[in-house]
Amino acid sequence: MSLSPLDSPLWSGLYGDPELSAMLGDAALLAAMVRVEVALAEACAAEKIVPEAAAREIAERFADYRPDPAVLAEGAARDGVPVPALLSEMKAQLSEEARDALHWGATSQDIVDSATALVVGEALDRISVRLRDLIAVTGNLAEREAETVMAGRTRSQIGLPVSFGALVANWGQPLIDAQSRLATARAACCRVALHGAVGTDAALGEKAAPVREWMGPALGLRAEEQPAHTRRDSWAEIGGQGALLAASLGRIGADVIWLAQSGIKEVAIAGGGSSTMPHKSNPVAAEALVALARHSAQLQAGLLGAVVHGQFRDGAAWGLEWMSLRPILVACGAALRLSGEMLGGLQADAVRMRANLEAEGFGPYAERAIFTLAQAIPRSEAKAAVQAAMATPDPLAALCASYPELDAGRLTDPLAAAAQAPAQARAFARRCKDFCGGDA
Amino acid sequence: MSLSPLDSPLWSGLYGDPELSAMLGDAALLAAMVRVEVALAEACAAEKIVPEAAAREIAERFADYRPDPAVLAEGAARDGVPVPALLSEMKAQLSEEARDALHWGATSQDIVDSATALVVGEALDRISVRLRDLIAVTGNLAEREAETVMAGRTRSQIGLPVSFGALVANWGQPLIDAQSRLATARAACCRVALHGAVGTDAALGEKAAPVREWMGPALGLRAEEQPAHTRRDSWAEIGGQGALLAASLGRIGADVIWLAQSGIKEVAIAGGGSSTMPHKSNPVAAEALVALARHSAQLQAGLLGAVVHGQFRDGAAWGLEWMSLRPILVACGAALRLSGEMLGGLQADAVRMRANLEAEGFGPYAERAIFTLAQAIPRSEAKAAVQAAMATPDPLAALCASYPELDAGRLTDPLAAAAQAPAQARAFARRCKDFCGGDA
Amino acid sequence: MSLSPLDSPLWSGLYGDPELSAMLGDAALLAAMVRVEVALAEACAAEKIVPEAAAREIAERFADYRPDPAVLAEGAARDGVPVPALLSEMKAQLSEEARDALHWGATSQDIVDSATALVVGEALDRISVRLRDLIAVTGNLAEREAETVMAGRTRSQIGLPVSFGALVANWGQPLIDAQSRLATARAACCRVALHGAVGTDAALGEKAAPVREWMGPALGLRAEEQPAHTRRDSWAEIGGQGALLAASLGRIGADVIWLAQSGIKEVAIAGGGSSTMPHKSNPVAAEALVALARHSAQLQAGLLGAVVHGQFRDGAAWGLEWMSLRPILVACGAALRLSGEMLGGLQADAVRMRANLEAEGFGPYAERAIFTLAQAIPRSEAKAAVQAAMATPDPLAALCASYPELDAGRLTDPLAAAAQAPAQARAFARRCKDFCGGDA
Amino acid sequence: MSLSPLDSPLWSGLYGDPELSAMLGDAALLAAMVRVEVALAEACAAEKIVPEAAAREIAERFADYRPDPAVLAEGAARDGVPVPALLSEMKAQLSEEARDALHWGATSQDIVDSATALVVGEALDRISVRLRDLIAVTGNLAEREAETVMAGRTRSQIGLPVSFGALVANWGQPLIDAQSRLATARAACCRVALHGAVGTDAALGEKAAPVREWMGPALGLRAEEQPAHTRRDSWAEIGGQGALLAASLGRIGADVIWLAQSGIKEVAIAGGGSSTMPHKSNPVAAEALVALARHSAQLQAGLLGAVVHGQFRDGAAWGLEWMSLRPILVACGAALRLSGEMLGGLQADAVRMRANLEAEGFGPYAERAIFTLAQAIPRSEAKAAVQAAMATPDPLAALCASYPELDAGRLTDPLAAAAQAPAQARAFARRCKDFCGGDA
Repeated sequence: MSLSPLDSPLWSGLYGDPELSAMLGDAALLAAMVRVEVALAEACAAEKIVPEAAAREIAERFADYRPDPAVLAEGAARDGVPVPALLSEMKAQLSEEARDALHWGATSQDIVDSATALVVGEALDRISVRLRDLIAVTGNLAEREAETVMAGRTRSQIGLPVSFGALVANWGQPLIDAQSRLATARAACCRVALHGAVGTDAALGEKAAPVREWMGPALGLRAEEQPAHTRRDSWAEIGGQGALLAASLGRIGADVIWLAQSGIKEVAIAGGGSSTMPHKSNPVAAEALVALARHSAQLQAGLLGAVVHGQFRDGAAWGLEWMSLRPILVACGAALRLSGEMLGGLQADAVRMRANLEAEGFGPYAERAIFTLAQAIPRSEAKAAVQAAMATPDPLAALCASYPELDAGRLTDPLAAAAQAPAQARAFARRCKDFCGGDA
Repeated sequence: MSLSPLDSPLWSGLYGDPELSAMLGDAALLAAMVRVEVALAEACAAEKIVPEAAAREIAERFADYRPDPAVLAEGAARDGVPVPALLSEMKAQLSEEARDALHWGATSQDIVDSATALVVGEALDRISVRLRDLIAVTGNLAEREAETVMAGRTRSQIGLPVSFGALVANWGQPLIDAQSRLATARAACCRVALHGAVGTDAALGEKAAPVREWMGPALGLRAEEQPAHTRRDSWAEIGGQGALLAASLGRIGADVIWLAQSGIKEVAIAGGGSSTMPHKSNPVAAEALVALARHSAQLQAGLLGAVVHGQFRDGAAWGLEWMSLRPILVACGAALRLSGEMLGGLQADAVRMRANLEAEGFGPYAERAIFTLAQAIPRSEAKAAVQAAMATPDPLAALCASYPELDAGRLTDPLAAAAQAPAQARAFARRCKDFCGGDA
Repeated sequence: MSLSPLDSPLWSGLYGDPELSAMLGDAALLAAMVRVEVALAEACAAEKIVPEAAAREIAERFADYRPDPAVLAEGAARDGVPVPALLSEMKAQLSEEARDALHWGATSQDIVDSATALVVGEALDRISVRLRDLIAVTGNLAEREAETVMAGRTRSQIGLPVSFGALVANWGQPLIDAQSRLATARAACCRVALHGAVGTDAALGEKAAPVREWMGPALGLRAEEQPAHTRRDSWAEIGGQGALLAASLGRIGADVIWLAQSGIKEVAIAGGGSSTMPHKSNPVAAEALVALARHSAQLQAGLLGAVVHGQFRDGAAWGLEWMSLRPILVACGAALRLSGEMLGGLQADAVRMRANLEAEGFGPYAERAIFTLAQAIPRSEAKAAVQAAMATPDPLAALCASYPELDAGRLTDPLAAAAQAPAQARAFARRCKDFCGGDA
Repeated sequence: MSLSPLDSPLWSGLYGDPELSAMLGDAALLAAMVRVEVALAEACAAEKIVPEAAAREIAERFADYRPDPAVLAEGAARDGVPVPALLSEMKAQLSEEARDALHWGATSQDIVDSATALVVGEALDRISVRLRDLIAVTGNLAEREAETVMAGRTRSQIGLPVSFGALVANWGQPLIDAQSRLATARAACCRVALHGAVGTDAALGEKAAPVREWMGPALGLRAEEQPAHTRRDSWAEIGGQGALLAASLGRIGADVIWLAQSGIKEVAIAGGGSSTMPHKSNPVAAEALVALARHSAQLQAGLLGAVVHGQFRDGAAWGLEWMSLRPILVACGAALRLSGEMLGGLQADAVRMRANLEAEGFGPYAERAIFTLAQAIPRSEAKAAVQAAMATPDPLAALCASYPELDAGRLTDPLAAAAQAPAQARAFARRCKDFCGGDA
């Protein structure tokens, strides 16, 4: 047991997310199946398909029913789906009349898919709240560090000065974008599945549509005429957005590892100890973010593969979904939790940032020198002059000797050289505030 | 050379798409880089950053310039990006003044990313037109076959009767959904990248924003304040939508293989021959659709991995994008082409469909019998009666003997048993017409 | 909790493997860490590094110690590795002297990697035993069905006659190949990791080698001079062989789904029920095999990604391994279990097989007719004659009319036309017997 | 055209490998098909199946025949395999008798698979030679830098001193392991495929085995009784070893990026320029190695998926192989080329390595201090003493004050503290020499 670090007792404090695991785990999924059966019975009663009393009995009897996954395991293994075994358990607790009213017109997949839409939708809502909180954290951090000058590294090499707040804005913008993509996916893809065995409303006939329309609002799901059960692209869309969010968070982790490394030390986060090296502090949360991102990407490839789903139900593709979709969302939850903790406690070392930039010498100001000179002389000439100066031991002095009109202090003022970086950080912080309703 | 079946001379007629390859290939990308440089020069002239005459010279000189990829290969290998070599080529063709005006304030990545947005955006537009055509084809097919009864198979077993038109609607709905997701992604993600070396507008300063705003409409791209160059999630979003579309098309292919197989033969498509078995016709296009779907899913996992992009530019992640994004879009193009040809020429064999359903005997009507009886007797009793009848050699006769009020003909009328399937097919056809502007 | 179908209470009866989960789960891994610490203490005592009595105390105290994963969860989350917390737990149970002797010269990764090698090695041994049993099952099935004629389908179309036994041999040969590859990987890759913090034997110095050589036989692992801790390719090799085995088993599942489908029905396996369609029997095990294969392939891509492991330890890559390697092996276990059950109970319907072949008419004998005629006339002429005959309503009659020397019965004798298929099946059965020690 | 960076004109100088592309491209594959047809004709003549003269004509006519891929494209698209079109081309160049002798008893897949085995086998041989050269380079580098002290980083933090030569040995050992795994895979998996339409030797009957045995040595391939055409696990095994090698090389790239970064600068490689930042040198080759590794991992997941291959030929799975296997091998080739160039020109900066280590202060010697003290006092006491000292401004002084018997110089001698690192480097260098035949 307890094999996947996403939900094992040993690892889930790091790679998992107890809250989302509880919302998405088998127990929650089975409880959601019960909610779907109850809503179906009530809808059938509202449409006069089953007796009012039977529906009421079902609703009351199962108001708090949370089936034990282990009890249904044998049935799930036999049938490839837990619904028949679940129905047996439920029927054993009902009067004959209610028993007959249960699961009217539904097929197993209707129940599983609607329940999945329920738990996935609720998980997405929770992810959305957490993401909003994280966006607020990044907004605050960007604002706080808007003028904290650091070296902007491209392809692992110091390029020009930036500010740490601008880097945070670069981290954060994809989160704002993810938020709106996730909301669109949630609204579009979480549907009532209730079209019967092969999706033709065979048992409910013309009453199928009103039954779905009754169930939709009751469960917080969309109700549509087009059968839900073969629209597996919807699950892949949700998984895709989840994997993309995990990737955007993984990128923050990768940057933090880089910035917190020995020899750079521009940021510090709470870190883990070593069993044998007392001086070390490992960037545990940042590493976990990268691992979660890469794992989610692979799970998403599986989910895309499951869209190649045969005819009106494909047990192989369905099984692949079960292995892929919910783990991606838990990975998102874990990544959001870790990111929030990490960024909430992150310490930027402005002195070290400036020192690392300074250690690079004149290089980071070379482009700036060219464009400054180019206001007066042709750019090619300016470039040649700067390159010539850079071949000398003290490029700045050499350059100012040739071009006395240059303001050496202004030229190599790191904050000035960071150009729009502080403004970008602040603009991002404002977007976060707007996005989070002004109270971030 | 010519290694990937997506664009090799031998295979691209099957797995490739000459039109999209031409739009997305290296030559097109380099030509787009030239267009970006021209637009940048014009924007800089409009903003009085460079002389009008220099910009005009650049625009005129490179109006039709399509650099030869092979000439730039050495530079691309040396620099890990073709822009420096491209600029050398371009400068050699310019006056000194124009040379100085070229590439003002830009960094290589600005040019590559803007050019990628250009070619990817145009490819998405083309994909959208083709997808619209394919949606029209599926709408027409769904309508034509709305009442063509066939066996609805779930988990590879015959369940209940459906209609072939309803299956086509199940194929087609994800295409309508894909169309709107692709449009959203195109609008949101194709941007002008022009923020300079580390994204801080260092060279252009406060003129950077107006320059971008000038370039945006000129290139058909979005212009935003937040630097584009580290928003790699945008490429992964586009790739994700592409891979999802390829998956939805792969699923059509998988179903066609299944339905066209020996022993089932419910549909026929144009097929390929065998070198040694003269009687065979292989479902070549359908197989290719499945292969393209599965390959795209893997490429997309790579693209998600590339979102873990270090700081202000990450050459490793960037390279991974180059290996992933454009091939996914060409795979989409090939899949659209193959789907259109395949569905355009698909023959449904209504006689065979009905025969295959009939060969299954009474089974496909068992659920219907239960729900019919359940109008008069309790459902559990109805189910028991049907199950008892099914243990006899002639279940229908046995059932009608016990329940003479049953209308045997109506009960086993396949079209009636297909329930809402014809209506679903027609509703889908209407959605297609609406979607395609009424003239599908 | 219980999110992954590979080990959740609800699903593990289908997609999981309780035996392998128990061997590979967190509890087993922690218990293996204890075994490694005990072996290390004993080896250090043997090398006079720590007192004999201390080692004895450690060995006795922890002979049956199985740490509770939940207790170590907080430490694992903090440190990114459970060893420091485990050592605290262990030390609390020891005398001061033994405490000092514990974990001498080791780093956390030494313990985790050695323990992983232990549990993975034992799991591979178990997989090997099960694979041997499955090979015996396929050998017996191939022999039993060596002459059971069926249609050989290529690209989903009936080609020529084969025998079911030959198909089973095609399924089984990759299992024999897998067995030897797995054995090679197990022997080469399961090593004692004990090189200290950065792999330099810093604490143990020249005694490190003898300590490893003492531990190797004690733990059933290889001991090598080259540090184990950065040889992550070893884990990817093991995972790769696991994923490949899962793929070969998934292919059997895919074939069984195909052959058991409605309308073909050449084989029958124990199947699952439907909640609403009493006549159906779903190929649950076969579907699960396909899902496990596809999921394992994705996990393996993650494991290959984890080989890009930074310097002397990379927490991000390590985490990705934890998410990938053990699940692949459990998936293998589940696939072996399902394959064994499925093939053990598989019923081949020889009558149906022959009927499906006959329904194809003369086609499957066309190539045979060409080669038979080509013994007397030029092949091109023979081919033209057969193709002409195939354009008539009764090709066999037409052909025999033109070539009276043809023996119509012999020409269309399916067993004769199956050529070497029976011999292949029997040769495979012999290889299985040889492979399994003569007693398969 | 020219879409994949692995073989596009623009990019293949970086991400591609002209030599391996030429060996594995469509033209080479088609030429290999011709070689297989020739060998088949000769074998058939040797077995008296076709006239000697016909075989001689085929062999002579096609001795240097390299079909043009573009000419066969239409046929490949129609048939899903180029062989029928290729045979038409070939027959048009033959006498009637030779035409009849061509392709005797073979099916298209026999030709494609045998040709693939040919070109893949030859590519593996080439990879093996290059890998051997690279192993020699790493051996020499390890020896040269055996005593070059550097900081050993674990989880991105400086742990203890190591030597650069030891890191190179860590890089190189997986290459030695890869070499032997690749050799095993090549020998086991590259086979003559010649079993006819469904693998039953239907056309050749009992002469099929001798024909294969004749062809095997002629083509340098294994000949086996068990049909080759459904043993797709063999291709996945080869791809898996290729992807694993690419991953091991990608890891070297990742380390080089890390070590060459601004602020660390312990190694330098030839680097690429920037269009706007004259001071930068980008680690282009190292980045490309990482991209190739990650891309190959995804391709390999596709190849594993293609093992789920239906019955006696599966066009969808086959197409997926074409998209995956050969690109992996070209990626390996590119990675070997880049690694060789990069490591051949790599400059290690011993002064900077030592300075970076020294900047970390006493920390890297803390574990050493504990084990040194533990020779005299209990380890727990030693650990407490060291930890107390580390809380002071000058830990070394504090410690020596308390324990005057400590030899401060010896304690913090980085080379001594690197322990077995130099010895490991030298042992690795010896293994390389042994491996490469003593002349590395």
